[in-house]
This record gives sequence, structure tokens and C-alpha cells, in this order.
Amino acid sequence: MLSPVRAGSPAESATGDTAFLQAMLDAEAALTRALAGLGHAPAAAARAVTDAARAERFDVRDLALRARAGGNPVIPLVADLTAAVAPAARPWVHPGATSQDILDTAAMLVARRTLRHLLEDLDRTAAALARLAAEHRSSAMPGRTLTQHAVPTTFGLKAAGWRSLVLDARDRLAVVRDRLPAQLGGAAGTLAAFQERGFLGPGPDGGGAALVEAYAAETGLAAPALPWHVLRTPVAELGCALALTGGALGKLAADVLLLARTETRELAEGAGGGSSAMPHKANPVRATLIAATARQLPSLAATLLGSMTAEDERPAGAWHAEWQSLREALRLTGGAAREAARLAEGLRVFPERMRTDLELTDGLIVSERLSVALAAAPGAAGGRAAAEQAARALGRDGVPLRQSLSLASELTEAQLDLLLDPDGYLGAAAALTDRALLRTAAVADPSPEDAP
Amino acid sequence: MLSPVRAGSPAESATGDTAFLQAMLDAEAALTRALAGLGHAPAAAARAVTDAARAERFDVRDLALRARAGGNPVIPLVADLTAAVAPAARPWVHPGATSQDILDTAAMLVARRTLRHLLEDLDRTAAALARLAAEHRSSAMPGRTLTQHAVPTTFGLKAAGWRSLVLDARDRLAVVRDRLPAQLGGAAGTLAAFQERGFLGPGPDGGGAALVEAYAAETGLAAPALPWHVLRTPVAELGCALALTGGALGKLAADVLLLARTETRELAEGAGGGSSAMPHKANPVRATLIAATARQLPSLAATLLGSMTAEDERPAGAWHAEWQSLREALRLTGGAAREAARLAEGLRVFPERMRTDLELTDGLIVSERLSVALAAAPGAAGGRAAAEQAARALGRDGVPLRQSLSLASELTEAQLDLLLDPDGYLGAAAALTDRALLRTAAVADPSPEDAP
Amino acid sequence: MLSPVRAGSPAESATGDTAFLQAMLDAEAALTRALAGLGHAPAAAARAVTDAARAERFDVRDLALRARAGGNPVIPLVADLTAAVAPAARPWVHPGATSQDILDTAAMLVARRTLRHLLEDLDRTAAALARLAAEHRSSAMPGRTLTQHAVPTTFGLKAAGWRSLVLDARDRLAVVRDRLPAQLGGAAGTLAAFQERGFLGPGPDGGGAALVEAYAAETGLAAPALPWHVLRTPVAELGCALALTGGALGKLAADVLLLARTETRELAEGAGGGSSAMPHKANPVRATLIAATARQLPSLAATLLGSMTAEDERPAGAWHAEWQSLREALRLTGGAAREAARLAEGLRVFPERMRTDLELTDGLIVSERLSVALAAAPGAAGGRAAAEQAARALGRDGVPLRQSLSLASELTEAQLDLLLDPDGYLGAAAALTDRALLRTAAVADPSPEDAP
Amino acid sequence: MLSPVRAGSPAESATGDTAFLQAMLDAEAALTRALAGLGHAPAAAARAVTDAARAERFDVRDLALRARAGGNPVIPLVADLTAAVAPAARPWVHPGATSQDILDTAAMLVARRTLRHLLEDLDRTAAALARLAAEHRSSAMPGRTLTQHAVPTTFGLKAAGWRSLVLDARDRLAVVRDRLPAQLGGAAGTLAAFQERGFLGPGPDGGGAALVEAYAAETGLAAPALPWHVLRTPVAELGCALALTGGALGKLAADVLLLARTETRELAEGAGGGSSAMPHKANPVRATLIAATARQLPSLAATLLGSMTAEDERPAGAWHAEWQSLREALRLTGGAAREAARLAEGLRVFPERMRTDLELTDGLIVSERLSVALAAAPGAAGGRAAAEQAARALGRDGVPLRQSLSLASELTEAQLDLLLDPDGYLGAAAALTDRALLRTAAVADPSPEDAP
Repeated sequence: MLSPVRAGSPAESATGDTAFLQAMLDAEAALTRALAGLGHAPAAAARAVTDAARAERFDVRDLALRARAGGNPVIPLVADLTAAVAPAARPWVHPGATSQDILDTAAMLVARRTLRHLLEDLDRTAAALARLAAEHRSSAMPGRTLTQHAVPTTFGLKAAGWRSLVLDARDRLAVVRDRLPAQLGGAAGTLAAFQERGFLGPGPDGGGAALVEAYAAETGLAAPALPWHVLRTPVAELGCALALTGGALGKLAADVLLLARTETRELAEGAGGGSSAMPHKANPVRATLIAATARQLPSLAATLLGSMTAEDERPAGAWHAEWQSLREALRLTGGAAREAARLAEGLRVFPERMRTDLELTDGLIVSERLSVALAAAPGAAGGRAAAEQAARALGRDGVPLRQSLSLASELTEAQLDLLLDPDGYLGAAAALTDRALLRTAAVADPSPEDAP
Repeated sequence: MLSPVRAGSPAESATGDTAFLQAMLDAEAALTRALAGLGHAPAAAARAVTDAARAERFDVRDLALRARAGGNPVIPLVADLTAAVAPAARPWVHPGATSQDILDTAAMLVARRTLRHLLEDLDRTAAALARLAAEHRSSAMPGRTLTQHAVPTTFGLKAAGWRSLVLDARDRLAVVRDRLPAQLGGAAGTLAAFQERGFLGPGPDGGGAALVEAYAAETGLAAPALPWHVLRTPVAELGCALALTGGALGKLAADVLLLARTETRELAEGAGGGSSAMPHKANPVRATLIAATARQLPSLAATLLGSMTAEDERPAGAWHAEWQSLREALRLTGGAAREAARLAEGLRVFPERMRTDLELTDGLIVSERLSVALAAAPGAAGGRAAAEQAARALGRDGVPLRQSLSLASELTEAQLDLLLDPDGYLGAAAALTDRALLRTAAVADPSPEDAP
Repeated sequence: MLSPVRAGSPAESATGDTAFLQAMLDAEAALTRALAGLGHAPAAAARAVTDAARAERFDVRDLALRARAGGNPVIPLVADLTAAVAPAARPWVHPGATSQDILDTAAMLVARRTLRHLLEDLDRTAAALARLAAEHRSSAMPGRTLTQHAVPTTFGLKAAGWRSLVLDARDRLAVVRDRLPAQLGGAAGTLAAFQERGFLGPGPDGGGAALVEAYAAETGLAAPALPWHVLRTPVAELGCALALTGGALGKLAADVLLLARTETRELAEGAGGGSSAMPHKANPVRATLIAATARQLPSLAATLLGSMTAEDERPAGAWHAEWQSLREALRLTGGAAREAARLAEGLRVFPERMRTDLELTDGLIVSERLSVALAAAPGAAGGRAAAEQAARALGRDGVPLRQSLSLASELTEAQLDLLLDPDGYLGAAAALTDRALLRTAAVADPSPEDAP
Repeated sequence: MLSPVRAGSPAESATGDTAFLQAMLDAEAALTRALAGLGHAPAAAARAVTDAARAERFDVRDLALRARAGGNPVIPLVADLTAAVAPAARPWVHPGATSQDILDTAAMLVARRTLRHLLEDLDRTAAALARLAAEHRSSAMPGRTLTQHAVPTTFGLKAAGWRSLVLDARDRLAVVRDRLPAQLGGAAGTLAAFQERGFLGPGPDGGGAALVEAYAAETGLAAPALPWHVLRTPVAELGCALALTGGALGKLAADVLLLARTETRELAEGAGGGSSAMPHKANPVRATLIAATARQLPSLAATLLGSMTAEDERPAGAWHAEWQSLREALRLTGGAAREAARLAEGLRVFPERMRTDLELTDGLIVSERLSVALAAAPGAAGGRAAAEQAARALGRDGVPLRQSLSLASELTEAQLDLLLDPDGYLGAAAALTDRALLRTAAVADPSPEDAP
């Protein structure tokens, strides 16, 4: 109820307790199937565990409460899953694994499944922004620096910039997603309990590569080179990629919020949200919720980065601090991406208002151009002084720029018209927009099998 | 399921969606009652709204989903609460208020209710630590700096230090709790809609003090001097106080984790948690969960501190970023305090093991004392050189300290016995412990009426 | 060069390497003087150490490089200070102390000295804001929520709110400042080396209270109840208070930045900063630098809060992480406070522009009032529907509000004039401003002896 | 003086004010040279600006103080650089550029130059860890989870894991380094002032690609697709990569600190650092300083991630918050990498002590194995119960494991010998180590021309 950005979103259900439970069960079933595939367990056991591994058969709340005793939910889950299969299959539940194998694999599965929705929403966002950029390739508007009108730009270039950030985030997330590894190491990451049970084979697979690869293949995750119980690059990189996405969307939201202000109204959200008190309000709610998300993600990423300092073969705290932080980061980003897609698809753009705003400085928005034009040679010396004088005359005494410029130069009326036209000082905005729109996503789309 | 530190704790239920819903309803009912008390609303309306304001009558999930449209859950709640009372009472639901009035008041109510449990658990923790400090006032153990044995200390002094931190946190939380303010300002904090409805009175209460105070009194919260929609000191200070508590408990946990290591075993948790793979494990689970909490709270406090930068009369994002962050901070700290109470109450202390560990450096743990004793005058010059030489002779060639010291000085065997006895170099540890135990909580206990 | 907010500020010089070195020397001299005062050291030694303890006599850079070997700068400093006094005084340099005693005391001295400037600048800021609030007690302007005009407010109330935040921060900082403790504990916080040297006395002062109090008195800091080598409440609370200050000033800056935007121009910084390219630019540079500071402080506070988890009797890392973080927090906040004082003192307010902006919504800024006025009874039902309809007619078809309201009601022209006048819907803004201005700083001014 | 981890390091000088000044001058000179190369400026001007662009000719402190007026140091620098060249060259200083073009390019140059040292130190670290892993491929030691001995592992596998993290960080940094872009966009990122001066050419290079590429080539940085004034992926990704490095090194440091504890002493730093009070101390100073760094970097990364939310065409605060945060992140990480290289190269390993520690649990360290061995079939049921009973008998009554096992099974003495030998339960540790050591750095070494 306190996180409307994700309420009812696919990211919310993909990261809920039930989804985590299902992912833990998927990890357990994948282990038994991997063993069966390698000839180390009966096929019937693999079928039995796979059949039993359905979240709806287990009591999530009860598992959560029993998780306190050992500090993680896998311990009671293994007991319940063992009880849920026929006695003949029981030895093949969780054999050789440690709680962290299951919980880490589950977290990566949840991440991969959430990222599927997230990447789709980023793709939708990028596509909508591409349409906006193309449509407004030549829509001039004030460029603003340090809150003040600076020189003209175009809305197309702005939208192309937003899209560029979204693609940066998308590409990074896609790379991270494809690397999300399964976890299998046993109690201290040596695979000893698997070896003890004869699961590794004496030969060239003494290192367990075949088992780890089979297990990873059953989960759909990448096979790691080493057990990563305390080598937390995957989690930290995921946290960074999510915060990067939050930052990318946060930039979009920040601009929409500013340009939708009552004084500006160059943009508006499709519908806007109402108020409990004021009948006229149409608030930029989507941008607000995205902005709120962008404020939370850097802190969550900091917690995950800090958890890399994980002592021993399993840390007392650093690992546990990741769970909720990662989940929250996933669902906040997922919710924000969905809102961003809707925001971009429904964004209303008012080019005529942008044009009106270009006049707000009575011509000063091209003062940089005047500096150049008034100087004999390129550079910033003489021309700038004349331009500054004209700017001051306008600001202090209300002398129109055109009048000052006529006095300071021999420019004709027609030349002054050209010089003072904001449309004539858009630089390479259109060409930059065109070039930026040539960029496509660097990494392929999420595969359909990631569907939960 | 991913936050065992709080699973099933009072802090968890006191911060859940239902608790927040109830607190929002409590805020709505308090407003109507305050108006009735001041003669601005019929007593029957106050009764009707109060009767209807019970969380179990509303659909939490449905409210959460409808919250997305306007970006907060108060908008749909007002609609449902209005529908839930008889038509005659409806004009007295939420009259003049804005969503933020209700949501902020509710957050403060939830905080106050959660803090009641939290303070109780900190009191339990402090009491248990006081017992440990008194009991082990003279239990010598190695003092460790930068991971190395330094000079002897006592477990009593260590426990007194832990308690001191817990009291610091407790006192700060109690001060913050007593200041937690109700929120009432209307759409932009001017109380205009209350004035328009004639709720403020024309005279000396033009500023609405009577209304705000009556409302605050009905909620049990403090009356603020100004509406604080964008003056977020209360939330930021609460976030800091919670993180301070997490840090205090984190210090306790860090020490327990180190002293319970298999190589050290000077301490053990009462029972310890099991493992899914290793039958012999008795893990310090409580300390682990507390340590995990201490890693997350600084980041959450950072988000809350960052949300002070709240633009305009209601910010687009900064406010929304507080909700889930504050809730998470409350329940993590609440859970950690409960675990800390249990940890302190069940902590097993092994003084004999501490004594054994004092011998681990073959006497070097009193090397500082030797520097002093070997010098003619106080200071650090000559005596230190002799002590360093003796330390080197021990480290490199295994020459016992006693032997080196006999050669370097004219100290008798009896004098050496005294000098090398760790119990003789405890400094003021016992006196410091006694003095620290004189400290009591600076702020009175939470009042019983805070019970939800 | 990369932190203009503090360049050349008193906070910068008060926190520089030389200032830290002087503070460390002050701590050493205070120790020797305290011992002399208690009769444990010759008065001549106290004079000699005090005379030698002048930063300009030592080589800061060389100390910094030699600090690496032991991980802190006190070790080489003690060597240099010892060498700088006559042989007779040398035994009285640093006797019984540990590096952390000196470094922590120095950090607290630096903090106290920096806070003196900081509190003065906050006082200046609050005074300037009080003047602005009083002067603009009745200057109506749009109240804005979620970026949109909501209902009218006054600039006086806004400035009073800013001041309220500044006083919150000031009061918190002043409390924290008065508690900043000296540090004296010896190697592991037991005072053993002081006792060994006979500095504690056998009687009721076995706990060293007299020594610690004399030392604290010589430094001007508070006397702690316990050595706080690993009880880091003072540092964490200071970090929080600084971040709270950053947040308070960040709110001021955020509002100034928005209200100074080219589209709004209700406020302007006194002079504004220039641009390397655009002759007309007058950027709100002070607000920009303050805003940048407010973005950095929560993270620094998070590091300091995280450092409370300090294991053993001296932690391997947590302590060291505080040094630069605390220094950076002090000087950023100090620089921001100075800029805030200048910003507030030079702020230009344009009430006529505020008035113009009140018309931007063609009357909708009082839509909340219309809801109430159009309803027969108080409440939000019938009147709100009519107000919504009128708002829609305006938004969609440009029907003036006045025309819709005439049709929907029997209100006369004169009544409509009153109803649509934004000045008539300011609620309790002026009374709230008056009440807020009654508040004074809760804690006395910094004492003059804090001057470095 | 307060950051010994970086004092005197290459990273410190590569990130100092002088280095930043030089980088800004390099950016200015690169611009003029790029223009000359494209025929838009005289070759003599390029030579003149390049010759003048030497940091020692400028007054860093004076520039820092004058930076306050406009909020950045480029404005005064352009004035000074213009004055430093002959009049004929002056128009070719900074023509068309904006302050951010120069400052961002300079920051990227500083980053690239610092990363050269950093990557070298990570390579040294990885090489030293590879040697340790190979040498101790079979050195058995206790694997520890949640602070308790779990099952045996090897020091080789631990060192291989550390190396794997270091390579993760190295590869990520190398990728980020190769992408660090030059910045060139003009006042609002449209390249308008370059176009106005005729620098873009009318044809297919209307987008300025030739100019941007020539400029980037002159700097040695990558050419960006778009000006990235407010598209801050490069800075955020760099911040994350630095924090990831800090986390990787922090893991190494955390393990060293634990294994070097007086109770454990399985590892020791080469020399160790002294103490101002205790002659015998040899503190793990390098690991301590690295650990302190790892505590600070996540917060700095959070600030940089938060700065992605950069409004408009240049933000008022978000950009400014990056400067010092990025610099601090670079030099902390650089210092930590240097210390890590020295730590790894000097690390002393005590396999015999590891072996002794394997006996600390009287055999329980292989309890997992006993569970398996005691069960008739693989799985966790019956065997585990017997193993738990034996563990309890040992823990409670001191019954040796061997005795319990003899009673509970028909295992022979010889079988029990094998079963209880920790060396026999190392799983795939050696094979995993071998496999991990096959990994090489994925990205080529830093190019020699990065030398400042």
C-alpha cells in the first residue's frame, strides 16, 4: 500500500513471497533433475520432486516464521518438500546442497524473471521515446542550464537523450541478466558433499563442472566458474544495473516534472492523477512515482555493494542483508519501468507552448549567438562585450535587444531577424537526434522461456 | 520470508498494510472527533466515523491498487470511508484535509506504536546487559585492537559499553517519539479549507492552533507549530534515530560474532541456529540477523535524509520515497531489537575461555605495562625499547618474556609474577563498569496508551 | 578546486590538514597540562609541551606520509613532538595515551571549532529568513503541490517554514556540539597505562574521573562517562545533525531554484553567477552549490552510521572510515551554511510576479474553495461535483470559471469577486507565519572561546 | 593526513587539484588542436594554446577561489588561459565550448589516468593471489560459515576466489575505462556555437561528428554519440565499477583481518604496523585501510548514481555533487588497490596453523560427511540423525566422535581414520582452484599512452 509504483505490477508478483518460494522449489527440483540427467538419481525421483515443487502446496507464512530459527527459509522448506514426496524420492531432495545454494539460485531466478518484464517495459519506453524524438525532431524549445534559459534546443533531442539513457540501462541490464548464475557449492563451496555422494565422478570432472552445468541448464541460469557464496559480483552488479535504470528513468521523470509545471506546461502526462481536496488538479503522478523510485535505488545499491565485504565462506550478515534489498530494488525498478512506458506512451507535448517560452527572455536566449555574430573574428572577446551590454540594457532599462544591436552594428533589419530567430540557432540538434535514433538495443530481447 | 529478523515480530505487525490502514482511519476519525469537540461537527458524526474506522471493514489490497491513480492510498480510502458511514455523517469525513495530512499522521502513529515495542525491547536488552556487566565485572579477557590482542580488559566493561550504546539509542528514540507530530495543514499547509468551513474561528485562533491541538490530542501525537508537509525534520530525525539504534545493536552483534568464532568461543548464543547440511552447527543466528539489519539501516536513513529536499508545498517524489523506507527502517530496527533482547538474555559467557585466551600471546598482552615498569621515570622512552626487545626475542626466537625481563632488569621473580599477571593490568575497568551502570534511561518509559 | 561550496570558507580552513594537526597537538598539550594540574607532572613540562604544540612547527605532508605505516598520523606526531621538547619534558608527552585518544579528541575539537562558524551562519540565515517572512507576511503566491498550482499561500509562510527547518538543524547541532566529548581511554579503554603511571589515584577516583575531567576541561570538550573508542554515538549523531542541516538548507535551495526558473522568476539570487558562453546568464549559483551539498551529505552520514558497527576495542576499518567522511561532512555543511546566509540575505523577491502567477490557472487555484462554497453544507460531495464540472469546462472549452459558476449557482457578481480572489483564500497563512516567528533558537549561542 | 590509504599514492597525485587543472588545460588544448586539424583554426594557435596549457603556469588556489562566483573553475581558467597566449591565438581559446565540456572531459582524463595505476595494481594483486592459490592448492583449512567451522576447504580455493573477484573488478573497470568519453556539446548540447562559427561544415557532418571525433582523439578518450551533459551513464558506471573494486578488495581484507586475529593467526601481513602504546603490536594495517575504503565507496557510488537524476540541459546541483565524490572514489580505490597489491605480495601463510585449527572441533568439521557415510543410501535422513547424536554426545558429555561412531556403525578403525581425516573431505577444492586459475583478464592492459 505504501509503494504505489509497484502495486499490481508484474514486478510485484514476480518478486513476492510466493514467487520466491516457487523459485526455491524450482532450484530444488532442478538439482534433482540434474542428478537424474547425469545418472546419479532415479528419473522417478526427479519427476516426484518436480511434481511436488509447486508453491501453492506450501505455507509461505509458516515457512517465514520457521525461517527465524536457522536464519533462512530453506531449512524448513527442505523439511516440508521432503515430506511432500514419496519416501523413495526423499533421499534425492537437496542432497549435497546447502541453504545458500537454493536461496541464491532462487534469487537469481526471481531476478531473471523480473528482468523479463523490466526489459520489455524499457523497450516499450525506448520505442515511445523514439517516436517522440522523430515527431519533434524540429520542435524548438528553450534549453535550460542551472534553471535558466540558455540557448534553444529541440524536444526531439531531449527525447533522444532520454532514449539513449534508457538504452544504456537496458543494455547493461541485459548483459547482467545473461550472466546471472546458478549457485551450487555445498556447505563451504567445495562441492564436498556432492563428491562424497559420488555425484562428481572421479575423472576430468573432479571439479564438478558437469553437475554445475547440468543444474544451471535446468534452471535456465548461467553456469558459474566457481561457487560464488562469498564472491558477490553478480548481486552487486545487478544492484548497480537496477540503480542505473532508476537513474535513467529518474532523469526522464525530473524533466517531465519540470516541463509540466503550471508555469511551463510544455508537457503533460496523459491523464494525470487527481487530488483528495482540489477538483482541478491533474498531477504528473507517473513521473512522481518514478522520481520517488530514483531516490531509493542508490541507497539499495549501496547496501548491495557493501555486502560484497562478505567474510569467510558464508558471512554472518552481509548475505542476509542482500535478500530484502535486492527484492526491493527489483520491484521498485520494475514498477518504475512500467510507469515509464505508460508515461512515454501517453506523454502530451505542446510545441506551441515551447515556442512561446522561447520568447520569455525577449531574445536573450540567443545571446551566445549574438556574441559570435558581433565579433569580427571567431572567439569570445569583442562580440561578447557588445552582447553583454545589450543584455544589460534590456535587463535594466528595458531597451529592446534589436534596438541595442542596431546601434552597436551595421546589421540590417533582415539580418537581425535571422539572428534573433531561435529556430536559426538550433545547431546540430536535428542531426544529433537522427544519429541517436540509429542506435538499437545492443543485446537481444529476453527469451520467452523466462516467463515464470 | 526474506527478512527473518522481523518475521512474526510485533514490529512487523505494527508496520504492516493493515496497521497503516488502521492508522489512516484513526487519523480520519481523530479529525472528525476534534471538530466535534470544538463544536464544529455533530457528535453523532464523530461517533459514526469512529465506528466505521476499523481496518477490517476495508479491502487493503484493493486500496493499494486504486492508490496508483492518484499516487497515494488516501484518495480511495476517503471514498470508501465516506461510503461506509450514514449519509448524515458523510460531510464530516475528511473535511478540509488533504491526503498528506492523513498519510503523515498515520505514519507517525505507526512509528509511535512500533516504537513502544522497540523501546521495551531495548529496555530488556539494556537490563540483560546490566546483569552481564555486573556479573562479569572482574572477568578478565583480552582487549583487542585492529584484530590483535592489545591489553587486558574485562567482559564487564565490554557489556557496560554495549549497554551504554543501547541507552544512547533508547534515549534518542524516546525523545524523537515524544516529538512525533500529527499533521494537519490542508491542501498547501495554510489551513484554508478549514477556515473556509468555519473551523478556525475568527479570533485569536485564526492560526488554527485549537484545531490542530485538538486533532493531535485525539491521535495521541504532538501538536506541531507549523504544518510540516515539506518540513521533514520529524521523519529525518526518526530515520537517524533508527539507524543509530541499528548501529548500537550492530556493535553488540559484531562483538558477539567475533567472540563466538570457533577459534575463540568466549561467548555463545543461547541456542544457536542449525544448518541444512551440517549436523553440528550452532550458528549465532540472532547476531547474524542483527548484523544484517545494521548493514541496511544507514542506507534507509540516507534516503530519508535525502527526502528533506522536498520542493514546493508538496514534493513530487521526495515524500513518496519516504513511505516504504520509513516502514522498512521501523520494522528492521524493531526486529533487531527483539533479537537483541533475546541475544542478551540468553548469552552464554565463558570466563575460563577468556582467561585461556589471555595467555595466547605468552605475556605480550601486558607489553605496554612492561614499557612503563622497565622505565625509570614515567614516559615511553627507555622502558619501551627494552620491552620491544623482549617482544622481539619472544617472537623471533621463542625466548620467554620472563627470561628476557630478568636479564634486562633487576626485577625479582615475585615482581615479575605480579607484572605479568593480566589481572593486575585491568586499569580502571571495574570502576568504569560501576560508573556506567549508574546510568539510567533519561526519558520515561513509553506510555501504555500507545498500544495499538 | 572541485568543491566551490567550501573554497575559501572558514569551514575549509577549520577542517584542513593544518587545523587537524593543531587539534592533535592541542590534545597532547591538554593531556600534559591536565596531568600537571593534578600534580602528576611538572608544570614546566606542561609549559614545554604547550609551547611546542604549534602546527607551524611540524611538517604536515611528511606526517601524512609516515601515517601509512601504522595507519594513523598520531604515531609519527608523538615522535616529532617528543623530539621538539627538551629532554626533561619528554616523558610527559603522550604518557598513557593511545593514538585514538588524540585523534578522536582532535576530531571533536575540529568539529567544535567548525560548528562555531556553522552555527553563526545558520543564525544569520535564520535572521534573514525572519526578515523575509515578516516583510512578505501577506505576499500571496501560488502554493504548489506535485508541481501544480494547488491553492494560494504566502511567501511569508514559505520563508517562515524555511526558517523553521534552519532552527531545527541549528538546535540539533547545538545540542550535539555541547556533548562532543574528549577521548581518553588508553590502549583498550581501561585507562590501565594511566593507572600504571600512578595518574589515577587509589581512592574514589580509581575510575579516572578526575583525570578525564581535567583533560576534557583543558580541551573545552565534554567529559565522557566511558571511553568511547568503540561507542561511536558522538560521531554518528554529529553526522546525522550535519546531514539534517544539509537537508534543511537543501529544501531552501530547492525552492529558490524552482522559483527562480526563467518561467517563474518569483525569486532571484542577489547577483547570480555568469557563464563561460552566454553573456545574459545570471545563474542561481549559491542555491546550486547548496543543492549539490544536500545530495552528498546523506551518503556521508550513512558511512558514519555504518561505522558504529565497530568491533572489538578498536575496529580495523570502521574507525578509519570516519575520518575523511566526517571532515568532508563538516566542511560541506559549513560551506553550504555560509552560502545559505548569503543567499537569504541577498534574496530578491518579486511579489508582483507572484501575483501574476496566481492568475495562471484562470481561477482554478481556488477550486478547492469553490467546492466548499458551492456546497450547501460543509463536506466534499455536491459542491465538488459542480466545481469539477466548471474546471472541466474551462480546461476543455475555455469557458471562464465565472460564467460556469454563475450558471451553477445563484451567487452574485460581488460574491463571485470575493470567491475568486486568491487573497481571500490564504487561510491561516499570516497567523501561522506570526506564530512561527515567535520561535527562537532553543540553545544558546556558541561560546566565544571556540574560536580556533 | 586523514586518508592514509591514499597518502603518497599515484592515485593521490593523479587526482589532485594540479592534475585536474592539467586535465582541464589538456581539454582546452585538445579543442584548439582539433579545430586546427580540421582546418578551422590556425596551426599556430593550436601550438600556442598547447604550449600555454601547462598547469604550473597557473595558480590553482586562486582559480579555486574564483570558481565560487560562477560555481565552476572553468570560467576563471578560460580567462587566465586566454591571457596566457598571444593576442592572435586568443580567439581560439575555448571557442564554442561550455564550462561543462571542459570539466567533464577533464574528469574523464583524470579517471583514465588514475585507472592506469589502478589496473596495474589490480593486476599485481591478481598475480600475487594466483601464486598463493597455486602454492596452497592443497593447504587444508577450516571452511567457516556464519563464524563457525563448517567443513574443510583449502587456502588455495580461498585465494583463487579472491583473485576471481579482483578479476571481476578489473575487467569491469577496463571496460568502463575504454568507454570514458570526451565531452563536447556547447551551451546546451546542440553544438550551436560551433556551428555558428562554421566549425561543423554544412554537409553530412552537420551533426558535428568530425569535430567531436577529432577532439576525442586529441584527448585519447572515446567519442560519444551524443553530448552527455545530462546523460550521466559514464560517471555512474565508473562510480559503480570503483565501488565494485572496493567490494572485491574489501572481501580480501575482511578475510585477512579474521584469519590474522590473535586467536587464529593462519595469515599475517608481511610486516604489520606498530602502535603508539604497545611495543608488541603488529597490526594488519593494509587490510585495515582497505576495509575502511570498502566502507566508504558504496556511499560515494550512491551519490553518483543519484546524480543521474540531472534535470534540464545542465542540472543545478546534481552535476556539482559528482566532482568531489568521483575524485574521492577514484583516489580511495586507487589507494586501496596499491595496498592490496602489497598485502597480497607480502602475505604470510601458515598452513601448519590451518591444520591445527582443523582439529578445533574434535572432528565435527566433517560432520556433514559423517551424515552421508552413516546413511545406507545417499540423502539426508537416517545418517544425519546418527551424526547429530554423535555431535551432541561430544558437545554435552565429551564423548569422542570416534567412540560414538564405533557404536553407531560397523565401521572399522581404518575406515574411521579415513572418514575423520579433514584432508579426505576437501571435495573439488583443488580442481576448482585449477579451473579458476585458468581465467585471465578479459580486457587488454592499459595502454602506455595513458601515462599523465
